[in-house]
Amino acid sequence: MSAEDVFEVVEQESKVSREEHDAAVPELRVALLNAQCDLGNSDHSVIVVLGGLDFQGRDELLNTLHEWMDARFMDVESFVPPTAEDEAHPIAWRVWRRMPLRGRVALFLSDWTTTMLADLQEDGEVDAEAFTRRVEAIRRLEKLMTADGTQLIKIWLHLSKSELKKRRKKGRKKQAGASFGDEDQAVLDEYEKGLPWFGRIIEATGTADSPWHLIDSAQKRHRELAVGRVLLRELEARLASADSPPVTDSGPVLMAVGADGQETSGRQPKTLADVDLTPRLDEEEYDERRKAAQARLSQLGLEAREQGLSTVLAFEGWDAAGKGGTIRRITSAWDARYYRVIPIAAPTDEERAHHYLWRFWRHVPRDGHSTIYDRTWYGRVLVERVEGFAEEAAWRRAYDEIVQFERQLSDHGMVVQKFWLHIDPDEQLARFKAREKTLYKKYKITAEDYRNRERWDEYAAAVDEMVARTDRPSAPWHLVASNDKRSARVQVLETVCQALEERLAARQASKKRKRSR
Amino acid sequence: MSAEDVFEVVEQESKVSREEHDAAVPELRVALLNAQCDLGNSDHSVIVVLGGLDFQGRDELLNTLHEWMDARFMDVESFVPPTAEDEAHPIAWRVWRRMPLRGRVALFLSDWTTTMLADLQEDGEVDAEAFTRRVEAIRRLEKLMTADGTQLIKIWLHLSKSELKKRRKKGRKKQAGASFGDEDQAVLDEYEKGLPWFGRIIEATGTADSPWHLIDSAQKRHRELAVGRVLLRELEARLASADSPPVTDSGPVLMAVGADGQETSGRQPKTLADVDLTPRLDEEEYDERRKAAQARLSQLGLEAREQGLSTVLAFEGWDAAGKGGTIRRITSAWDARYYRVIPIAAPTDEERAHHYLWRFWRHVPRDGHSTIYDRTWYGRVLVERVEGFAEEAAWRRAYDEIVQFERQLSDHGMVVQKFWLHIDPDEQLARFKAREKTLYKKYKITAEDYRNRERWDEYAAAVDEMVARTDRPSAPWHLVASNDKRSARVQVLETVCQALEERLAARQASKKRKRSR
Repeated sequence: MSAEDVFEVVEQESKVSREEHDAAVPELRVALLNAQCDLGNSDHSVIVVLGGLDFQGRDELLNTLHEWMDARFMDVESFVPPTAEDEAHPIAWRVWRRMPLRGRVALFLSDWTTTMLADLQEDGEVDAEAFTRRVEAIRRLEKLMTADGTQLIKIWLHLSKSELKKRRKKGRKKQAGASFGDEDQAVLDEYEKGLPWFGRIIEATGTADSPWHLIDSAQKRHRELAVGRVLLRELEARLASADSPPVTDSGPVLMAVGADGQETSGRQPKTLADVDLTPRLDEEEYDERRKAAQARLSQLGLEAREQGLSTVLAFEGWDAAGKGGTIRRITSAWDARYYRVIPIAAPTDEERAHHYLWRFWRHVPRDGHSTIYDRTWYGRVLVERVEGFAEEAAWRRAYDEIVQFERQLSDHGMVVQKFWLHIDPDEQLARFKAREKTLYKKYKITAEDYRNRERWDEYAAAVDEMVARTDRPSAPWHLVASNDKRSARVQVLETVCQALEERLAARQASKKRKRSR
Repeated sequence: MSAEDVFEVVEQESKVSREEHDAAVPELRVALLNAQCDLGNSDHSVIVVLGGLDFQGRDELLNTLHEWMDARFMDVESFVPPTAEDEAHPIAWRVWRRMPLRGRVALFLSDWTTTMLADLQEDGEVDAEAFTRRVEAIRRLEKLMTADGTQLIKIWLHLSKSELKKRRKKGRKKQAGASFGDEDQAVLDEYEKGLPWFGRIIEATGTADSPWHLIDSAQKRHRELAVGRVLLRELEARLASADSPPVTDSGPVLMAVGADGQETSGRQPKTLADVDLTPRLDEEEYDERRKAAQARLSQLGLEAREQGLSTVLAFEGWDAAGKGGTIRRITSAWDARYYRVIPIAAPTDEERAHHYLWRFWRHVPRDGHSTIYDRTWYGRVLVERVEGFAEEAAWRRAYDEIVQFERQLSDHGMVVQKFWLHIDPDEQLARFKAREKTLYKKYKITAEDYRNRERWDEYAAAVDEMVARTDRPSAPWHLVASNDKRSARVQVLETVCQALEERLAARQASKKRKRSR
């Protein structure tokens, strides 16, 4: 089926008589309300995407669904126009922040697919390469949701060109109930040109897990019944299936294979065993290099802010490896109004009622601001994996989800750097012993800390796999030798400086190129 | 002490030597970190308000505090400039949405008092009446926080005029570390005129529960030590006291007394006993009046939206009184994109970690939107009172807090209407029996529902007191006879219509007056 033919199947002037409609509605409403009630007691959320060409019909439908179902457990989220906050964040942020809690239904207007594609148009032309990339991002986002148990029901309200013309005619004659707005006129104007693109979107983003439901939207009664019945069928089918999300594979993870036949990330091999833990800095050299790096970092922070450049720093590492102290060396060079340090501990119950990445999206910085995560989304493939808190399918899927998450940050222009602070078991034990004498209450060691040491090897294996699978040029891992705190701190400071410098220089160069054109 | 004299006490050119500073800091840091750690395990939050004239000093201080304390459990919230979302909500909303979770510290810049006063200035003149009203609002907001256990530490960084001039001189000479920005110049320009107003703010908003700490900000070392020590002293004092919030009285509640010597709200007396439950509507009259009211409401909804007018409807009532059905009759007249129905059930743990009003502030609509609460903040003085979930001091305080909350909505221009749907015990029993046969799962009756009937009289007394204490012309209660669902629905619909019509007409009239000036 060619892209142009996608819509032919629904251009059949489908009509429903008043009698048929009125006879069917009462039963449908009871069933929909009961399905919604069951959903409230279930462990998943539902997103109904209302896309298509029929804006008037969509709004009518929205009101009908609010009458038919329980408005108290239904959210309406509109993506046009984007807010100032939306525009200051990566494009997927606006979807993440509007995701419904488990047990609830959200109606998304317009569908995010066409909305997210809208900004690819320039002078009416769509950039084909950008289109492909965006479609891929949408597919991955939808897959991530469905893999987490979110049910996506995507509905496309179609109108034929002749129906649009009929509506314009009625609108001009001011017939009762008729209206034909600027949006409708725009659709009509671009009909021939736009339809193939819409067809391509429908084809490209309709998958087995989340197909598009194409509905002829010309007649209100037909539209209502068709949408109501699709919703009911889909809601009931999902509720009847086991409550565990459908198992999907982890998707294509790109793994370069080295000459030794081992998988590598295609960059320098990075494993904990490769980290040389011996380097040490004496106090004098430390003070000199730290101060120099902090001065540089302070200046770079200013420039980044002026240019609206954001930084995301992710810190992981063994207990007592020195994350807190290292983070403080960075923040003391920055202005406290423009960064936040987010400690990751047990999730709140609102966080638990969302996809595990939601709590990190919450804190993604807006343009010109920075976020430092003290422990991160990698908990999924570290502690949750090793301690058995997440099922194997879930943490395996996470590698790909994480790579995509970070890519969305870097695609938005952010600097993303990830650090694993590495120490050996002896050094950890020595630090635990020292902490038992510390004046600082928050560093007090518990029995739990000692217990965690027993699984050192399992954690180390998890770290190596994590680095191999998620190291990317746009979001690199740095394994930092931290037996010596001074050299670890200096290494992190200098790495952040270098990353910022490179990005600022690249922006400068790209600006110059644009100017010289 | 006159307003002009307030600041004299701190204009003493206080200096701290480097030796004294460096000797004191290490111990202060340990103590501050430990206090912060104890706070993390406590049941209250801390807001440090950083106000005053020294912007440069404030920013330096901010960075110092981030170095000294644990940045991961400290939020920085800036109130200038207000965001577009801030401006589309009542003025206190921006404070509410930034309130820290229990166990955390938030640093508020600039202090909200001067920020909230800033927009009272027109052509450099402050409107004295508006000033008094705003100060009163600030006092009440602060009292509400402290009564809930939030610790407020308000710090004013003062600069003398001569110090400001010195800084300008140094800035011009580009001495190391010196800077003198536009903000500083503005303070200097308006010094004579502004100072008395600042003095009045300090005097008016400094209370026993939340005094201002005035600090001479001229010298960095002095400023750091003074602020650090105040913070430590205040944090430790609060931690050492019992964890229950200080008991404060409920504040002046205005009660009009009628000729019979009974308290009334100054409006028509409203008690449940006064409600005539006999009126009934036959189906024909119901259909006619309902349809007419819905058509009116639909049109009024459109006009309200165009004018940026928001509506807040609060629904309370006996179980099975018909809240859900009544709400649906309203929403079916409105556009689903512009209203939300918020069902109030058990709070989430993020909600529990805030003042009980926080979860309602969360859903306060932005300009042009509406929120319908299905059960409300009145739970505090109904179920929480009767079932003993809240202590008497807490629910008694709530009357005043609620009146202030609603006043902030109405002061922002919102239409606020409150409904108690009233039925008698026999009618409730009949509805419970009918529901046991319903097809709708969500209406199923539980043993809990029957148990609640045993406390009918206690609830009725609580309702009467609630209405007497919180009925206000700008946020009136309507006791709606609901034994007959039809007449209840029509009464609510017509009441909402009338409130909207009156408000829209008043706006129209005020616009005309402005134009004719």
